Amino acid sequence: MPLEIPFTVPKVPKVFQIADTSFVDDATSANIAYNDKYVIVYDFSKVDIDGAIAEFKELLKDLGATGLHTEVRSGQQNQLLVFIQPPRELLGNTVHHSRVMDWLYGITRQHPGGTKNTIAAGAFEAEDLLSTFHLVTWRKELGGAGISPEFGKWENVLSVFPLHNPRLNRDLLVHMSKRLFLSSTDLDWIRNLWGSKVAFYFAFIQSYFLSLAFPCVAGIFAWAFLPKYSLTFALIIGAWCTVFLEYWKIREVDLSIRWNVRGVSKLKSNRPQFQWEKEVIDAAGRVRHYFPRWKRIARQLYVVPFLIISTLFLSLVIGGIFALETFINDGYDGPYDYYLEYCPTIFLAILLPFINSYLEGIAARLTDYENHRTQDHYDMALTQKVFVLQSISNYLPIFLTGFVYVPFGDVIIPKLRASILTYIGQKPDPNFTFYVDPDRLRNEVITLTVTGQVSSAIEELALPYLKSNTKEWWRSYRNTHTFSGRKKNKWRRGDDPSEARFLGRVRKQAALPSYDVQEDISEMVLQFGYLALFSPVWPLIPIGFFINNWFELRADIIKICAEHQRPDPRRDDGIGPWVASLEALTWLGSLTTAAIVHLYGFEYTWGVGKWWSLPLTIFLSEHIFLGFRSGVRWALETIGSQHIRKERAEMYAERKRYLDEMEASAAKKGHLDVVERERRKSVRMTAADVFWTRQVEEGASLHAGVGLIKAIKGGEIMKKMI
Amino acid sequence: MPLEIPFTVPKVPKVFQIADTSFVDDATSANIAYNDKYVIVYDFSKVDIDGAIAEFKELLKDLGATGLHTEVRSGQQNQLLVFIQPPRELLGNTVHHSRVMDWLYGITRQHPGGTKNTIAAGAFEAEDLLSTFHLVTWRKELGGAGISPEFGKWENVLSVFPLHNPRLNRDLLVHMSKRLFLSSTDLDWIRNLWGSKVAFYFAFIQSYFLSLAFPCVAGIFAWAFLPKYSLTFALIIGAWCTVFLEYWKIREVDLSIRWNVRGVSKLKSNRPQFQWEKEVIDAAGRVRHYFPRWKRIARQLYVVPFLIISTLFLSLVIGGIFALETFINDGYDGPYDYYLEYCPTIFLAILLPFINSYLEGIAARLTDYENHRTQDHYDMALTQKVFVLQSISNYLPIFLTGFVYVPFGDVIIPKLRASILTYIGQKPDPNFTFYVDPDRLRNEVITLTVTGQVSSAIEELALPYLKSNTKEWWRSYRNTHTFSGRKKNKWRRGDDPSEARFLGRVRKQAALPSYDVQEDISEMVLQFGYLALFSPVWPLIPIGFFINNWFELRADIIKICAEHQRPDPRRDDGIGPWVASLEALTWLGSLTTAAIVHLYGFEYTWGVGKWWSLPLTIFLSEHIFLGFRSGVRWALETIGSQHIRKERAEMYAERKRYLDEMEASAAKKGHLDVVERERRKSVRMTAADVFWTRQVEEGASLHAGVGLIKAIKGGEIMKKMI
Repeated sequence: MPLEIPFTVPKVPKVFQIADTSFVDDATSANIAYNDKYVIVYDFSKVDIDGAIAEFKELLKDLGATGLHTEVRSGQQNQLLVFIQPPRELLGNTVHHSRVMDWLYGITRQHPGGTKNTIAAGAFEAEDLLSTFHLVTWRKELGGAGISPEFGKWENVLSVFPLHNPRLNRDLLVHMSKRLFLSSTDLDWIRNLWGSKVAFYFAFIQSYFLSLAFPCVAGIFAWAFLPKYSLTFALIIGAWCTVFLEYWKIREVDLSIRWNVRGVSKLKSNRPQFQWEKEVIDAAGRVRHYFPRWKRIARQLYVVPFLIISTLFLSLVIGGIFALETFINDGYDGPYDYYLEYCPTIFLAILLPFINSYLEGIAARLTDYENHRTQDHYDMALTQKVFVLQSISNYLPIFLTGFVYVPFGDVIIPKLRASILTYIGQKPDPNFTFYVDPDRLRNEVITLTVTGQVSSAIEELALPYLKSNTKEWWRSYRNTHTFSGRKKNKWRRGDDPSEARFLGRVRKQAALPSYDVQEDISEMVLQFGYLALFSPVWPLIPIGFFINNWFELRADIIKICAEHQRPDPRRDDGIGPWVASLEALTWLGSLTTAAIVHLYGFEYTWGVGKWWSLPLTIFLSEHIFLGFRSGVRWALETIGSQHIRKERAEMYAERKRYLDEMEASAAKKGHLDVVERERRKSVRMTAADVFWTRQVEEGASLHAGVGLIKAIKGGEIMKKMI
Repeated sequence: MPLEIPFTVPKVPKVFQIADTSFVDDATSANIAYNDKYVIVYDFSKVDIDGAIAEFKELLKDLGATGLHTEVRSGQQNQLLVFIQPPRELLGNTVHHSRVMDWLYGITRQHPGGTKNTIAAGAFEAEDLLSTFHLVTWRKELGGAGISPEFGKWENVLSVFPLHNPRLNRDLLVHMSKRLFLSSTDLDWIRNLWGSKVAFYFAFIQSYFLSLAFPCVAGIFAWAFLPKYSLTFALIIGAWCTVFLEYWKIREVDLSIRWNVRGVSKLKSNRPQFQWEKEVIDAAGRVRHYFPRWKRIARQLYVVPFLIISTLFLSLVIGGIFALETFINDGYDGPYDYYLEYCPTIFLAILLPFINSYLEGIAARLTDYENHRTQDHYDMALTQKVFVLQSISNYLPIFLTGFVYVPFGDVIIPKLRASILTYIGQKPDPNFTFYVDPDRLRNEVITLTVTGQVSSAIEELALPYLKSNTKEWWRSYRNTHTFSGRKKNKWRRGDDPSEARFLGRVRKQAALPSYDVQEDISEMVLQFGYLALFSPVWPLIPIGFFINNWFELRADIIKICAEHQRPDPRRDDGIGPWVASLEALTWLGSLTTAAIVHLYGFEYTWGVGKWWSLPLTIFLSEHIFLGFRSGVRWALETIGSQHIRKERAEMYAERKRYLDEMEASAAKKGHLDVVERERRKSVRMTAADVFWTRQVEEGASLHAGVGLIKAIKGGEIMKKMI
């Protein structure tokens, strides 16, 4: 387990010392370097003995052909662990090659130097590890072993993952627990350990957390001094959302330049599932696997009917349950009242996960069909679809409460009650009147956000911990009890005692799920959505989020360390289309908050007069928001990103240096005399040039001009005198 | 005059042959090269003789110190013409230096080769000419003569302009008159002659003209088959506007790459009026004149109250005149009826130019205050302000007709009439009823667009032609009659007969106004606005625009050739913020066309029921537009710009070449054997590495794995058997 300390370290060690070979005598654990270790989990439970042996042979052959070293140990029941380590030379050369590719594709500006045989040491652990990852997973034409877990001929390869570096993990946790706020240097630690893709999530949550301080203060102020459903507070939060997003876009660019990953998506290799139509050779002589863009666009259009139908369907289900619940709670006092009250909620709790997983299945199949070239694009396309579905389940109940239940409840509920009672054969009471609880919107928002934070914390931290520990316990229990003839030590059969602890750790990691950073970002975006969409309902929401996110950031580090396989150190230059989702939520917020303030905040009476002016309020609010946004954008673009300016200055300096060198080497070739009057007469003496040679002599132009001035001015003076 | 043919050319000559020295014996005109000629017009009418001589000396000294050759001739009354030609070496070196600067600032990717003494010939006339322009106008620290017309110590320098190349102008006109549509190659001609800034205008009008074909066809279809104020037609035009704009953005990038000017605005020099707060030395060691960006932003905020007040003021004036006009036309039948009818229109025609020029004066002072660093930014900031004022004068009458006069006329006009009659002491007729002319909106739009096109054609072509010819005639008349003692030949006193015709041409050019491309773009944007804002009113509008623009493009070429000084061959990478103006108009159009279709097209009766649903229609329309726009943007971004792809491929190819060269030179240094199994045992034999050396022998991993599979599978089989 990464959190355990396998050896005593005198002080906090030099962090990110790569290929640490310092020998610590700990017989139960190997103190190895983690910058180049990958593990393949091969599961042969679904094949027979001969098939398994043949597949395994193939696996080792492919890995061997790439030049990778392998060590094989037994894994969990019916699993083999293949430990992979590239030889120093191969790894160093791959790292160098990767840097050259970065330069070739314009991600970095300077050639790293060296030749194709250069062996480079990674600047940080994730750089080495990324090259190992490429050696294992890239297809053979690109120099990899082409291992694609759970796909094609490798469908029995369960996973391919790098090993957690327990010491660095622990150092990171110790370091983070000491820091109240994370600086860019702190984020570098995460980038160095897990790559820029994961680091960008932490950069985002950090920026978001910090900027939440402002709505917190504003929220306390609004709670203390402003009226309920305050217009002012809604405006403040709308402005904050806008400014934060524009700031984050600049921050993203800054970090991508800092981490040398700007535009890195150009370089991504094909995912194995990508089906290309033909190979084309592009202008630069590269072979490209070509799938027409317009075709992908056409396929992506299927998402429109899918989302419309899912939205309608989810709305119906949630709306129906909501109506039933309201009816039973408020309008029903028939038999089984007490028991029935909990029915709809339980029903929804059981039903919703099924519906969601069914819809997510369709979303995954649609995304498959869209045939994305890179894994990143695929992940993004899928997560965005899932995010829309999640948004509906999360925000719809609040919409229903705010815009249907509270304003129309006193009309709808009695009618609903009457028709249901008639339907079940009872006689409705004509004098029944229903009073809507006007605080229900507020309670709904508070409940949903608070329970959301708590349940996600449980789901993310406690549950997986319990789950994996229980699993582990059950496995070791079974192992020790089935092979009852053997001695009941805590090590697996066949394990060398000096390796046993290490192997135990790896087996645990092999059983862990892989980490998907998109899910964590999605959670933050959903949270941001509550703020953007419903801020005026309860101004203290941001405080809960602020506190939650401080812990969330740290808990997510623990989660990755302890409850997930170490993430592949992928690179990315930002959080991608999530920015668009955040912008969409802010925009939508300018509509919903206006509607909430209009319906709840303004001191109107309920009635038609109020409803007809609602579109106008929304229209105004939206356009104030859009105007404000373009103002902020324009201002921030004018001020610009300091990293972009720095990058430009660097490019200039670099080229200037090159220029100076060139000039220095050519310095002896002679000096240009800029003023070469004497040559003029002799050159190009055609009639065309006569004009240009009349006043060649020194001072001739001056003489001519002064003469003219005198003549003309003199003439004028004469005229006046006459 | 550029249009005259000064000598007989056997065939159409090789165009853009630079520094054409072919000698044609024409005694009255010098057949010179025009790629390096600039003329300074020095006016000494406002200074006395001694002051004039001193200033003129200073002028020649500054030009001479830069290394420029000068020839002085007399100009119009009280003016001197200073002809400027840099020596071949200086010009060639400046051209080379400019290319190196382009590379230094990342506008071009490849160093042009050569050293700081290299003398390069411009690839086309405008490139040479731009360097001459820089030599004359750049400040002394940058190697120019620092001549800034009408500013500071050069306030008596009226203008600095390049000479028209009559042959190339004529060739261009001949060529353009033969082409129905312009290709990129044709646009290259304009770029070669007048630089990319002007060429981008022609590229824009060409793209716009071509794409207008679609609304033309749609318009005829709508006119023939669709109902009046058709929703369908409004949707089609909205979609067309959006697609056209997104297409143009890509086209702009393509052309800027084609012309090597992408990002050229980074390189612009300070305008002389720019006031900096301090000099800073940036990361690349350059001295920068620094004026805080936030301060400029703060100053630019003044534009908000200015525009609000001007809009209100213009609305009041136009609205008032409009009301008066309506009253007199339709509601008034008192005394002087016939004469009064024309009063408001005449009043407006006289008043509006005064108001506009007053407001434009304030706009100019605001823009001065904003303290823009480059001339380009200054011009843009000013033109944008002027454009807003122009839009108001142009579109407001239609808005008033469409949304006030027609819907409310029957209520307002009688009341207006009554109160005016009471005011002037007459008794209003209580039975007066007023019937609004429902076609007035249509007539208004047709009148404004048609008269707009015609009047702008007159204003741009006929008027300046007449004006400059009359002026010329008056001047020569005066000259020949005042100096009555001298012989009345058609040449100016002191002119060498062989130069006289050439000088006559230059004097004419010196008297012409300079060309401002922003005004022409502004006119097109205004036209686009009519289409975007009021398309459903009269579906045949685009046909008029289509025909007009075919001529407009050609007329503008003639206009530049014949009625303006040759424009400075400035560079730019697009039409800049005009794209934002076009987008704003399209957006606004989604509101106004929805409102027009709602009020005029839908088969409602007039009444409250109609007005309350108007915000909803507008709201829907706007969001359909925004959704459509993001769809188009996303699709076009996915498909991408072919030039950007080509540029990327080129960068890759170039770097690859460099890499291959490096590899070739390093080829002898030895070969890396990727699989070096044998070295493994000897390297790093610490306890940490023991794990990784257990299965070093060939096939050891395989053996271990197969053994494990057999053991586990065997165990399972045994279990089953038991």
